[in-house]
Amino acid sequence: MRGLWLEEKRLSLREGLALPQPRAREALVRVILAGVCSTDLELTRGYYPYRGILGHEFVGEIVEAQGAPERVGERVVGEINAACGCCDFCSEGLPRHCRQRTVLGIVGRHGAFAEHLTLPLENLFSVPPRLDDEVAVFTEPLAAALEIGEQVSIDSTQRVLVVGAGRLGQLVARVLALSVCELSVVCRHERQRELLACTGARCISEKEVERAHYPVAVDTSGGEEGFALARRALRPRGTLVVKSTFRGAVRVDLAALVVDEISLVGSRCGPFAPALGLLADGKVDPRPLIEARYALVEGLTAMEHAKRQGALKVLLAP
Amino acid sequence: MRGLWLEEKRLSLREGLALPQPRAREALVRVILAGVCSTDLELTRGYYPYRGILGHEFVGEIVEAQGAPERVGERVVGEINAACGCCDFCSEGLPRHCRQRTVLGIVGRHGAFAEHLTLPLENLFSVPPRLDDEVAVFTEPLAAALEIGEQVSIDSTQRVLVVGAGRLGQLVARVLALSVCELSVVCRHERQRELLACTGARCISEKEVERAHYPVAVDTSGGEEGFALARRALRPRGTLVVKSTFRGAVRVDLAALVVDEISLVGSRCGPFAPALGLLADGKVDPRPLIEARYALVEGLTAMEHAKRQGALKVLLAP
Repeated sequence: MRGLWLEEKRLSLREGLALPQPRAREALVRVILAGVCSTDLELTRGYYPYRGILGHEFVGEIVEAQGAPERVGERVVGEINAACGCCDFCSEGLPRHCRQRTVLGIVGRHGAFAEHLTLPLENLFSVPPRLDDEVAVFTEPLAAALEIGEQVSIDSTQRVLVVGAGRLGQLVARVLALSVCELSVVCRHERQRELLACTGARCISEKEVERAHYPVAVDTSGGEEGFALARRALRPRGTLVVKSTFRGAVRVDLAALVVDEISLVGSRCGPFAPALGLLADGKVDPRPLIEARYALVEGLTAMEHAKRQGALKVLLAP
Repeated sequence: MRGLWLEEKRLSLREGLALPQPRAREALVRVILAGVCSTDLELTRGYYPYRGILGHEFVGEIVEAQGAPERVGERVVGEINAACGCCDFCSEGLPRHCRQRTVLGIVGRHGAFAEHLTLPLENLFSVPPRLDDEVAVFTEPLAAALEIGEQVSIDSTQRVLVVGAGRLGQLVARVLALSVCELSVVCRHERQRELLACTGARCISEKEVERAHYPVAVDTSGGEEGFALARRALRPRGTLVVKSTFRGAVRVDLAALVVDEISLVGSRCGPFAPALGLLADGKVDPRPLIEARYALVEGLTAMEHAKRQGALKVLLAP
């Protein structure tokens, strides 16, 4: 099959790759549509030494299901962490943090920028028929945006700041706008502001961010500058949700963190069922975030496109 | 009066200092006993550009009380943050984070390493008669240890790790041992282990700290090495309480923080009333932590003593 292969920071389009073989209780999924995420771009920059087919956001169709033939033909999206089910973290309800986990297109499991992929059946969530592929493909990043609410209790009357209005920031803003009354989003591009108009969020520039003003800030920028901006914006006892893939280490003034009693909360993957629910109910419409759609054979061009400053969601269709 | 004066990182014993003048709703307090804390040592190293009399842990006697003469003669300990009562943080129940606050011996208010100090009357807590001065002087750092429980919900069945068994670590361990069943404390000195025997905590070396094992870790070391050890010890979704005065910035791997969904929680001053309660009920006995007692006139020697590796509580008596 065809796939976008990453090896030692070099990405290449490969033909004739072996079809992945589903193991017991796994499914072979034909990829219908995949999405490019910042983590994919960071992986090509060496964020993590992954070797294999890239990609983890997808909607597809089950074509083979080991031990569950009734699921063949199902249109699905997939939780990207494949857990062992046996380790202490799995037993304690943290399968997304399983010690032996593979992660689709990130750790030890070929990803979604290919014609087919495999995942455990329990990872695959059925997509309601009324959901278009272009909407369903956003389930994984929307789930990640929902993870914030799983970790941090946000009062609807609290002021919340989102730093960054790119791919992930747009989804985070859409999710928070559903419950938060005073939502501000730091935007760099006019297009980002236009896209957020539907949310009712206040779009502001970096200079307009008030210091020590917000009880909750979410950094979706993935950069040291955005992190520092979110940190400065927090009032004492505030919470900074770090919702992005960072390159390397960042200098953090722990003395100031102590004096202001700030909490930093790292946030990664989130729950699929509520994400599918929000999409199915039309409460979040991600379609305006689609920037371009490429055939898989144009995958390298698509990745270059996704790297452009301010680029939103780039989709790949095998 | 006599006092230990800090100016441009130089500490000196001064005589003939002006007696501080209590303002409306403030008291003049005669210091009976004061304690040296790591923050005092960091201030002499330039952690914060403070100029004035050092010291913030004390027990004393009210000798003048503006607008409340009935409180003269009361033996008291004092909350070190003097709040304006008017700003947004004060209105929202965060007076310890008041925007205009002065902080005893740290920010804009002469401290406790002197014969007298002033604080707002509302900051002064009456000491029960049965509490010795040597016990009462620990109220402020014990309150800081209790702050952990105000910020982080710790289940008694959870494993908790405390990194560092010095002045603050000992108090943190004593407080946590009251409710946590599986408490481990990283010790460097045999004396630290002996002092913790009464708590039932497991004393371990740095090498014995299991990776990705603890849901909660508290760093009381104030050093980058201790912070890194506490971070490594945390399991996914774990919480690292940063309970110490750090010098400068620390490099934090935010990418890993995100992947493991770790929370960092800065923790500073805590509630006085429950701290006094624990001391009065004998649930925490800090007296074994007293390393030495000096007269204020020997203050410089006392500070040098407190700087020694592994030194515990050094007290100063005017």
